[in-house]
Amino acid sequence: MYTIGVDIGGTSIKAGVVDKSGKITLSLQIPTKNSPNACIESIISLIKDLIEKSNLTTNQIKGIGFGFPGMVNSKTGVVDFLPNMKDWENIDFSSKIENAFGVKVKITNDANAHTLAEQKYGSAKGAKNVVMLTLGTGVGGGVIIDGKLYEGEGSKGAELGHTTLILGGNKCGCGRKGCLEAYVSTTALINQAKEQMLENKESALWSLCNNDLATLNGKIFFTALNNGDKLAEKVFDKYIEYLSEGILNFCNIFRPEIMVLGGGISAQGKVLTDKIIKYCEDSYYGLKGAPKVKIVTATLSNDAGIIGASALI
Amino acid sequence: MYTIGVDIGGTSIKAGVVDKSGKITLSLQIPTKNSPNACIESIISLIKDLIEKSNLTTNQIKGIGFGFPGMVNSKTGVVDFLPNMKDWENIDFSSKIENAFGVKVKITNDANAHTLAEQKYGSAKGAKNVVMLTLGTGVGGGVIIDGKLYEGEGSKGAELGHTTLILGGNKCGCGRKGCLEAYVSTTALINQAKEQMLENKESALWSLCNNDLATLNGKIFFTALNNGDKLAEKVFDKYIEYLSEGILNFCNIFRPEIMVLGGGISAQGKVLTDKIIKYCEDSYYGLKGAPKVKIVTATLSNDAGIIGASALI
Repeated sequence: MYTIGVDIGGTSIKAGVVDKSGKITLSLQIPTKNSPNACIESIISLIKDLIEKSNLTTNQIKGIGFGFPGMVNSKTGVVDFLPNMKDWENIDFSSKIENAFGVKVKITNDANAHTLAEQKYGSAKGAKNVVMLTLGTGVGGGVIIDGKLYEGEGSKGAELGHTTLILGGNKCGCGRKGCLEAYVSTTALINQAKEQMLENKESALWSLCNNDLATLNGKIFFTALNNGDKLAEKVFDKYIEYLSEGILNFCNIFRPEIMVLGGGISAQGKVLTDKIIKYCEDSYYGLKGAPKVKIVTATLSNDAGIIGASALI
Repeated sequence: MYTIGVDIGGTSIKAGVVDKSGKITLSLQIPTKNSPNACIESIISLIKDLIEKSNLTTNQIKGIGFGFPGMVNSKTGVVDFLPNMKDWENIDFSSKIENAFGVKVKITNDANAHTLAEQKYGSAKGAKNVVMLTLGTGVGGGVIIDGKLYEGEGSKGAELGHTTLILGGNKCGCGRKGCLEAYVSTTALINQAKEQMLENKESALWSLCNNDLATLNGKIFFTALNNGDKLAEKVFDKYIEYLSEGILNFCNIFRPEIMVLGGGISAQGKVLTDKIIKYCEDSYYGLKGAPKVKIVTATLSNDAGIIGASALI
């Protein structure tokens, strides 16, 4: 038997057939259509295509899992709201896919799917209690308790990015102020660098972005950092403080076996984790006498969406 | 069959026989002895006494549960550290009680015990996902996931008071800065009132504490508040903001069915919860479109320690 995992994104949709060992045997990708109806039709075609090209029948498919970039209700199968996809509000999604294929369908958000993938096949394999932060444009969270994904009421828990780091601080996309996301997302890191650049015209960051502040991105920032630019180092040290304090909070709340960092910034690997681990060690991982929490970066990156979605089945 | 619950405190130790329905059939209390050895001996005598006075035999006791005011390891049965009890460090506790009575022994911290009591027999009865905050000298936390107490690695999770509200803010007893505990414990509330009193000599709080700032306590503060003192109202409104923002964090992290507030301050009941609920409603309980989280005060108060400890069995 096989499962199918579908990773829904604002620009493209990736689907893959996954075998029992968590390996993708075939994957296909299509651009994301503009309306929910057109999108759902294209997803159904994509899955049919995938099954056909894999020389399988639906009898050999145990179920189909989906990871969405936004708010969904995994119990009802309804997509509540996708901030970056037009008109995706209160869409009764799972039933449409079930009707088309007659197999079990499960949905979750993308951070949850990624967390599940890492726990089943990646950096947190075998761990029973896992917390994951995805550091991208926003900051997503995933929580595994006793080997199972914990989603909370209406699947609206594990929103770890939306927890206070500085009460009344930077405005967050969620409407609150001072959330972790407002300090440790890629967007926040870039904004922190831009602020510092305005006060320091000598930084190599200026030449790296051709004296145009607007072109600064994560890639340029980490190039400067790895070249030893003082300003980039200063900004990164402050970023590490923000992120580590957030991690210490989740150590105290969950005391998991392992914390996994995913998303764009996690590609920095040990540049990131060495500093975080030092910070957390100096702070006794939140609580004197408490067990250390292993802190690692995600290992599945690109395929995690498909693998995690398939693992819902 | 019966269970026994023992509530260990810095000044007294309370033990009770609890029946299947969670009712205490008999309870006894002794002062807390000065050393761990003397204390353990007195606990064994207390339990023997309790069994005898209940006309029971150890065959009728299913097990004995203990709630401790500090850090314990529920898996190993070792008491790691009790901040307010001398020499309680790394004490192999459970095995000693097991040897004395030949029955199952379980230990946890007092906030966990209280949370379990509320979920089994109190304000959160029947709920599967519960988060509790105990607002006392410190701020404890308890988490029930899928009907089971969640303690984390080495029982060092659910330390909900030690999560950042204001990065770099007020010093917390745990060594970090800006923890929720440093803003919403009774101690913190009293300190906030004292600070404001120094700037406002007209507050009724001054006469209520005979012009001696050092005598201000929770009882005096809430008397002034309930009498409509403007300064007390101002301090309380700020306190509600701190506490509500902490609660919103736990809504986003756990999205539990219910949040329970315990500890001294929770005796204020609706004076406390009405304001918190209004604050959380105005903030969409942390996330627009997410289910509301029921917010209540604990109902078992005095007996919660015994009942919760017995419920470990």
